[in-house]
Amino acid sequence: MTQRKGPLAGVRILEIGHFIAAPFAARVLADLGADILKIEPPGGDPVRTWGAAVDGHSVWWSQHGRNKRSICLNLKAPEGVAIVKRLVADCDALVENLRPGQLAKLGLGDDVLRAVRPDLVIAHVSGYGMSGPARDRAAFGVIGEAVGGLRYLTDHPPGKSDLPPVRTGVSIGDSIAGLYAALGIVSALLGRTRGNDGLTLDVALADAVLSLMEGMLPEYGRLGTVRRPTGSTIPTAAPSNAYPTKEGRWILIGGNSNNLFAKLCALIGRPELAQDPRFLDNRLRVQNMDELDEIIAGWTRRHTAGEALARLEEADIPSSSVYSVEDCVADPQFRYRGMVRDVDDPLIGPTLHAGIVPEVVEAPGEVAWTGPAVGAHTDEVLAAAGIDAAERERLRAAGVIG
Amino acid sequence: MTQRKGPLAGVRILEIGHFIAAPFAARVLADLGADILKIEPPGGDPVRTWGAAVDGHSVWWSQHGRNKRSICLNLKAPEGVAIVKRLVADCDALVENLRPGQLAKLGLGDDVLRAVRPDLVIAHVSGYGMSGPARDRAAFGVIGEAVGGLRYLTDHPPGKSDLPPVRTGVSIGDSIAGLYAALGIVSALLGRTRGNDGLTLDVALADAVLSLMEGMLPEYGRLGTVRRPTGSTIPTAAPSNAYPTKEGRWILIGGNSNNLFAKLCALIGRPELAQDPRFLDNRLRVQNMDELDEIIAGWTRRHTAGEALARLEEADIPSSSVYSVEDCVADPQFRYRGMVRDVDDPLIGPTLHAGIVPEVVEAPGEVAWTGPAVGAHTDEVLAAAGIDAAERERLRAAGVIG
Repeated sequence: MTQRKGPLAGVRILEIGHFIAAPFAARVLADLGADILKIEPPGGDPVRTWGAAVDGHSVWWSQHGRNKRSICLNLKAPEGVAIVKRLVADCDALVENLRPGQLAKLGLGDDVLRAVRPDLVIAHVSGYGMSGPARDRAAFGVIGEAVGGLRYLTDHPPGKSDLPPVRTGVSIGDSIAGLYAALGIVSALLGRTRGNDGLTLDVALADAVLSLMEGMLPEYGRLGTVRRPTGSTIPTAAPSNAYPTKEGRWILIGGNSNNLFAKLCALIGRPELAQDPRFLDNRLRVQNMDELDEIIAGWTRRHTAGEALARLEEADIPSSSVYSVEDCVADPQFRYRGMVRDVDDPLIGPTLHAGIVPEVVEAPGEVAWTGPAVGAHTDEVLAAAGIDAAERERLRAAGVIG
Repeated sequence: MTQRKGPLAGVRILEIGHFIAAPFAARVLADLGADILKIEPPGGDPVRTWGAAVDGHSVWWSQHGRNKRSICLNLKAPEGVAIVKRLVADCDALVENLRPGQLAKLGLGDDVLRAVRPDLVIAHVSGYGMSGPARDRAAFGVIGEAVGGLRYLTDHPPGKSDLPPVRTGVSIGDSIAGLYAALGIVSALLGRTRGNDGLTLDVALADAVLSLMEGMLPEYGRLGTVRRPTGSTIPTAAPSNAYPTKEGRWILIGGNSNNLFAKLCALIGRPELAQDPRFLDNRLRVQNMDELDEIIAGWTRRHTAGEALARLEEADIPSSSVYSVEDCVADPQFRYRGMVRDVDDPLIGPTLHAGIVPEVVEAPGEVAWTGPAVGAHTDEVLAAAGIDAAERERLRAAGVIG
């Protein structure tokens, strides 16, 4: 095993994850240097069948599975379960997203795991959580996003469109839950150095989404206000919107501080608006948002996106076009920071990955390797756990390992 | 100061944050027990003026500022800067989101801070990052979301709507960057216990968003495929969509595994579809998504949302309505788990907060107090730092503290 780089080098975490949430938690920990042992069933994580493939190898997997070691184990076989226990003995943490209680049914309940490794940190990720009346309900990212209140708001204002509220285009409920799980694991490991035992984390997709809904709960609780979808605007800040350009594209402008607003008024040739009683501060601008947005759109419609953005940038006003992946890849900032980076994947060939977040200046993480084939590290990891070649041959023939 | 609960109890972090990203990072750390010293300028964090207010007190702030101690300091005064240095001496980490370089201009560059506290972890959060050609450009969450590629996909398919792509309804680019910053801080603190010095973290909103765009970069890099918006569907999994009900509402159904799909076919009275060559596996179902969604919508249109969801739940198929805040608050699961909780805020009165994520079973975090008034803890914190009452009176009269 290569020595990993990053602040989590030396931390070892077992992943019994599938699809997105737990694997994403493990990916961000792996990006920061943790040694992730990912247990995959024969055939592999089913996420490998999502999206485009090259020679039967998932392209997304190149990034989603990177920096991890893949161990192929049949957890329905008692010997497979026994191997997990051997591996757990050398792990600091475990992250999983089977249905609540399923790991215990396999013979790997928290008590069993802690009998092997008393200070093990255990993170359970699920749709609704490990407790409560909905605990046993199935959920995906889409459901967590809806139940957490995000999906309702990802829409145009009521009456403006007959179409349903949209997804964000990615399973963001899974990613957010994954980030919370990663944060919880590292926090529990830090707590362990300060005297805690191994802690148990219970991360629900729906909870994770609800936790970042800003003033939605306090405003309903205190004032009875139901936050409604507001399309491309921000209900608490103005001007901030998507504005149409001469060629019919959209650009985003955020001019919602008094200072930025004054610069924007000057730029569009209407400096007097900064003193207009309708627009004197953010609260007034929010009240008179439609009028203000129409004035700004009057300016953007007279310019191409390129012209308008060049002038906005010159005036130091937050602005951008709506980037597709082509724009992300062409962006010199992303390239400069290694956030769009070339990688050579032995399974699918040369491709692009996102870089490592956060950038750790003195101990940067790295893409040490791309998403491995199912079981690529089974032999290496099992040998290190004291299971010799003859035994591995027997286990492989019996369908316990792959 | 009350003894805090949670895995991060005993960790002290200085926040020089405003608006959303850095304050949100500090909030999730505070929720897990960290002692956050939030430096606020006279007048307070400008986010306090966003959204609804009661008696001049921000309602969102009740949650956004909770579990933190507020110290009001004028950083434009040299004596204010000197006080920050005194406080940093007793802190483990600092998180800030001023414009890149602005903290250094105030006399609080990384070198100055580390001269006081050599092992300080420092997290800089900004729109584009601390390096590169766009470093000095202003950005908000809206811009980070657009540049990271999220906004483009939060839309209906090309040609389906004349309206712009929508926001998610919250500044999710800020929240995601905040989560990465929190993860980075705790990871660096864990690394410190393993021999690292204090590390420096550079978190860009645009990078944070790009990092969770799933297969977008690898698929473009390897195959030239540009991911396009797909409205309420998932481009890699089917069936998963928003379906119309009898009364014209939308419900979400995720039946995108072979097992779930078979259950769904049985439920809608079309068991033969599970064997239909168009729908045999996920890849085929994605290819024939429109046909399949029309069949499912044919069933949902014949039922009210309540009827359809009851039957879907009974069949154990992931499903939900599109929750507004009223639905979140009425949900027994959120109440059971304390994710919707009553709090009594001394500034605004009784209201609701989101609970703590992740739930740490053996050492749960808590809402120890609601968002404090500006400078509520100035005297307490400065006294503990050895600045006596007479000196504080002088500093207050001089406008250095508040």
